[in-house]
Amino acid sequence: MSKTKVGIINVTGYAGVELARLLYQHPQVELTSVTGRSAAGKRLGEVFPHLASTELTIEAELGEVDFAFSAMPHRESAKEVIPLLNRGIKVVDISADFRLKEAAEYSEWYGFTHPAPQLLKQAVYGLTELHRSQVASAQLVANPGCYPAGAILALAPAVKAGVIEPDIIIDSKSGVSGAGRTLSLETHFSEVNEDATAYALDGHRHLPEIIQELKLLRPEPSPSVTFVPHLIPMTRGILTTGYAPLAPGKAVTGKKGKEELRHIYLDFYQGEPFVKVVEFPPHTKHTLGNNLCLIYPTIDARTGRLIVTSSIDNLGKGAAGQAIQNMNLMLGLPETTGLEALALYP
Amino acid sequence: MSKTKVGIINVTGYAGVELARLLYQHPQVELTSVTGRSAAGKRLGEVFPHLASTELTIEAELGEVDFAFSAMPHRESAKEVIPLLNRGIKVVDISADFRLKEAAEYSEWYGFTHPAPQLLKQAVYGLTELHRSQVASAQLVANPGCYPAGAILALAPAVKAGVIEPDIIIDSKSGVSGAGRTLSLETHFSEVNEDATAYALDGHRHLPEIIQELKLLRPEPSPSVTFVPHLIPMTRGILTTGYAPLAPGKAVTGKKGKEELRHIYLDFYQGEPFVKVVEFPPHTKHTLGNNLCLIYPTIDARTGRLIVTSSIDNLGKGAAGQAIQNMNLMLGLPETTGLEALALYP
Amino acid sequence: MSKTKVGIINVTGYAGVELARLLYQHPQVELTSVTGRSAAGKRLGEVFPHLASTELTIEAELGEVDFAFSAMPHRESAKEVIPLLNRGIKVVDISADFRLKEAAEYSEWYGFTHPAPQLLKQAVYGLTELHRSQVASAQLVANPGCYPAGAILALAPAVKAGVIEPDIIIDSKSGVSGAGRTLSLETHFSEVNEDATAYALDGHRHLPEIIQELKLLRPEPSPSVTFVPHLIPMTRGILTTGYAPLAPGKAVTGKKGKEELRHIYLDFYQGEPFVKVVEFPPHTKHTLGNNLCLIYPTIDARTGRLIVTSSIDNLGKGAAGQAIQNMNLMLGLPETTGLEALALYP
Amino acid sequence: MSKTKVGIINVTGYAGVELARLLYQHPQVELTSVTGRSAAGKRLGEVFPHLASTELTIEAELGEVDFAFSAMPHRESAKEVIPLLNRGIKVVDISADFRLKEAAEYSEWYGFTHPAPQLLKQAVYGLTELHRSQVASAQLVANPGCYPAGAILALAPAVKAGVIEPDIIIDSKSGVSGAGRTLSLETHFSEVNEDATAYALDGHRHLPEIIQELKLLRPEPSPSVTFVPHLIPMTRGILTTGYAPLAPGKAVTGKKGKEELRHIYLDFYQGEPFVKVVEFPPHTKHTLGNNLCLIYPTIDARTGRLIVTSSIDNLGKGAAGQAIQNMNLMLGLPETTGLEALALYP
Repeated sequence: MSKTKVGIINVTGYAGVELARLLYQHPQVELTSVTGRSAAGKRLGEVFPHLASTELTIEAELGEVDFAFSAMPHRESAKEVIPLLNRGIKVVDISADFRLKEAAEYSEWYGFTHPAPQLLKQAVYGLTELHRSQVASAQLVANPGCYPAGAILALAPAVKAGVIEPDIIIDSKSGVSGAGRTLSLETHFSEVNEDATAYALDGHRHLPEIIQELKLLRPEPSPSVTFVPHLIPMTRGILTTGYAPLAPGKAVTGKKGKEELRHIYLDFYQGEPFVKVVEFPPHTKHTLGNNLCLIYPTIDARTGRLIVTSSIDNLGKGAAGQAIQNMNLMLGLPETTGLEALALYP
Repeated sequence: MSKTKVGIINVTGYAGVELARLLYQHPQVELTSVTGRSAAGKRLGEVFPHLASTELTIEAELGEVDFAFSAMPHRESAKEVIPLLNRGIKVVDISADFRLKEAAEYSEWYGFTHPAPQLLKQAVYGLTELHRSQVASAQLVANPGCYPAGAILALAPAVKAGVIEPDIIIDSKSGVSGAGRTLSLETHFSEVNEDATAYALDGHRHLPEIIQELKLLRPEPSPSVTFVPHLIPMTRGILTTGYAPLAPGKAVTGKKGKEELRHIYLDFYQGEPFVKVVEFPPHTKHTLGNNLCLIYPTIDARTGRLIVTSSIDNLGKGAAGQAIQNMNLMLGLPETTGLEALALYP
Repeated sequence: MSKTKVGIINVTGYAGVELARLLYQHPQVELTSVTGRSAAGKRLGEVFPHLASTELTIEAELGEVDFAFSAMPHRESAKEVIPLLNRGIKVVDISADFRLKEAAEYSEWYGFTHPAPQLLKQAVYGLTELHRSQVASAQLVANPGCYPAGAILALAPAVKAGVIEPDIIIDSKSGVSGAGRTLSLETHFSEVNEDATAYALDGHRHLPEIIQELKLLRPEPSPSVTFVPHLIPMTRGILTTGYAPLAPGKAVTGKKGKEELRHIYLDFYQGEPFVKVVEFPPHTKHTLGNNLCLIYPTIDARTGRLIVTSSIDNLGKGAAGQAIQNMNLMLGLPETTGLEALALYP
Repeated sequence: MSKTKVGIINVTGYAGVELARLLYQHPQVELTSVTGRSAAGKRLGEVFPHLASTELTIEAELGEVDFAFSAMPHRESAKEVIPLLNRGIKVVDISADFRLKEAAEYSEWYGFTHPAPQLLKQAVYGLTELHRSQVASAQLVANPGCYPAGAILALAPAVKAGVIEPDIIIDSKSGVSGAGRTLSLETHFSEVNEDATAYALDGHRHLPEIIQELKLLRPEPSPSVTFVPHLIPMTRGILTTGYAPLAPGKAVTGKKGKEELRHIYLDFYQGEPFVKVVEFPPHTKHTLGNNLCLIYPTIDARTGRLIVTSSIDNLGKGAAGQAIQNMNLMLGLPETTGLEALALYP
């Protein structure tokens, strides 16, 4: 049986190039076409030497494929994706263009009028653990943002179980590759090395995704979420620490409380191949290069608050790994195909 | 006029060696004696080549000095400090041994019975901006912990003004030098480089300091503080992000709210040489090697919460710089003497 | 057909744990036993969370295996390996204990009397590209040191072809994982981060290996090699720059010279799956986590010198990857089995 | 007495901003004017928060000053410097525009016709230790390149004494700030972090400077120098390792040889405030933020070669510190004024 032909639109960013690395090594699909504007005509291995063995050439336009990933920036991605959908091709969109259900959110958060609001309902938010069956039957999957992936997975069991009040603080620490391959002073080595800072304190674009998904898990009362991302001097990884008061009635305090909380998480993620509820605060290093999300939930007994910390690779579960997990489901392949690599340590 | 002779007990940790660097360059005091157990007998410049020009030799016992810093570990520091006090020597203790006012806290948090509970009331908590006049007349100053320095300064104006409810989350990100010079797997380069993690989720020893000081600023209602420290791959710096709901009555929301909040902070720190209320989220790089604390307070208008982020050098305002600021006051010197260095950038 | 059972003696160092990662993912062998002294009795995943899925327990003694790797320190490794050989088990020894052909070298460089000098002739130096057929039929393979792997491969074609005089300078820059997992001030994060230094200027133990192998390629005149290793602030990777005067008769100067030199290298490594002669100075990042050695040879036309720079992952081609390449040959498996992973970038 | 007014042309690069930091803290001069093209009109502290206390505004044109530094890029710097010289202002030029004595070298290495060849003879090459008296009386000093500063100082004593043959290899490892503040993929955090590479293998522009100065020390036989710079993942610092065969007649071999070599270096740099001949291979960390050059010369007894390794801060002795050392001399101030800061450690 011939392998499914897959393509990547805009391979030249970090999400695109990580998709290429994983797809090239994927045993059930064949990466046959990659595009990129400024680099069109160059061999992929010329621009990215670690991909030299792929022997692909970067094209201006996507070739004939059965399945496509778009790693275009938001706003531009939709324009690329819509024609593919019309031709019946299944697509995972890495950009934000189909993540939010309300078109108005695009005006508010991204500053453009969405070109295809009708597709927003049809698109499935591709955090597989929350929407597995819809992903499996979707034509268009909107891959989650890197911060939302780690944050939503960290909070979902507690929100769903109603053990916390919806007053949620999410404090995330991201490696610099999350800011992309486009040059900026904020990602210039000498500026960001040996530095840490908070940013987007007036509201990061990943916030509406987080709220949307937490609300689906428990619509009432509506969650009140503060999300602050931080940039720290490492290349890959997002560590997220979430805080929320335990709900008065269902509170789970004390040692027994921690154990009960742990079981709520273990039950929620039972059988999940890529989400692990661990016994110690996770390290981003343990998710380096893989598709895992490690979660440690606990209770601050002094204050009656949930503290939960999660670790992902922003280019793994936070982007390309998650996207391939979705593709596997959409193609009827075992969900873990091509994603079994262990973390690179140390 | 001869310069005041100062000494450092246990110069061989990172706080001790930073004290030596700053004191050697201090124009009004003379560093005449440094001690260290395992390194006794060695030239200071042999162990720390950047201090070669000091021409000091590490001693087993402190020589005759007018003023002493103890950079011993907690529990051992008190034993060194008490005899010095009895001889009338002024002391800044870098350890935790005199920071907490209640002896019972030492049993609970540090696991030992305090040897001199009567000194706890007498000792002044050396966060200069909060206790300037007491510091000036103190014989014994307990230098704040590195996390509390950044956290308390970040929250003090809002707590004092009553603009927040006392449900406070403090999420701190620290460089690795904060974990000291003692070897451990947690500070082994290959383990901590390209890694981020949370730790001490069951309660960090710096928490009671933070609560003690915030409570002094506004005793009622008692603050409910969750503090989670994180280790990130850089050598120096602590970035702290604090979160708290705005108080209902005094809430300061909207653009005007942000401006009012900013003025509360500006007023609180008016004239302070080492605390700067800045207009953008601060970078730890901008406090590298100096004694500054940079603070950016803002409001999450969507949720009605205060977000405040502060940056210090954990060895500067978080340890040795703060200690010398206290010494200056205790010796009647201008507070900024020897602490004017600009941050090393980039 | 059942898979070959393989074991790792002393899994708890960085080479051992990288072997475990690669062997667990190897499709043709089964990792069934791992040992470690201090950690015996613990689950492997408890000590190394990224290996949680292996479900192995660290043992005090190696279980029944068909093939073994020893990742013991030198001197201790021989003691472990000899009994295995006597039982007919094939072994790749990661330590230095069987790399040198002359027993006297162990007295000189390692300070101990070799316990089994007769095995030194029998052992095959496992730089596969130079000794492929002997490796294939060996019972005992001595895996090269990390520095020699990159240095010998960089220089071998030029030495073999006689295009250089044997006055060779080797300047290597290593990531810190090369110094192992054992704690030391030299590998303490705050000491080595943002630092570079040379070490072992009186002679590094990897020097006799390098000389031995270069001499095999061209015995006369005997090479005069200066080798200086440097420690730089990254976790993985060795970049080696080699220098030597072009031989007067066979000199290859000018543009044509560079082209001829390049072809000497291309011919030498033709068909090699893991050595790539590249067109630009290689980056260690392009060998991160894989088994490649990238080599760029060129000529300093102003001085008539060869400059050659190579890049490897010290834990890949410099240790565990190389060891598995040898194992594949010794077991009659395709040489690249389990080693096809692309570099992790960025 | 009023302080000398000094200005910086193009303050916005890393050399410029480090000049500003040091000059602001200099007790004998006053920094009164700084220029920058794109940033003109902004407060210096707005662009560089660590300089907030300077209260300077970036200007389009230099104001009235008694002394100027040009931190313009090469080719553009000469255009700025010449009018200042004509007005009788003393200048230290950080760029390469006046470093080389032969105008033809600018065509060859920098690709432009020098606009004022007559000034090349008049300009003094500002490696103070080699040209102190000329610097003191110069109107125009050409500040050395960062690599030449560390390399020439490392080799000068051996070249001068004739203990080596002039077949010299210079292998330098530089922090990323040496590549400047201008954005490029080569200095993008995710590309350069955890990476090492060689570059400029066809000849780096700093080579002719190195040759010119070594030749002045010993004209015959003319030195044959291979220089290869490397980029390693740290912000500041250059570690240089130099190699050369010991001269046959004057060879200094064995333990006695090392001692004699050491004394050649100690004698050469006797009384130098900023060059230290140390007893162990130096660390770049020990020159972080200061104006020192640490040098460790030794002998590879096996091969009869000199190995010498030096460490500088590329922005200190490699740029701004060196420039101020020159200024001090040119203004008749003590050479060390404003440059006494100890290295920032760790």
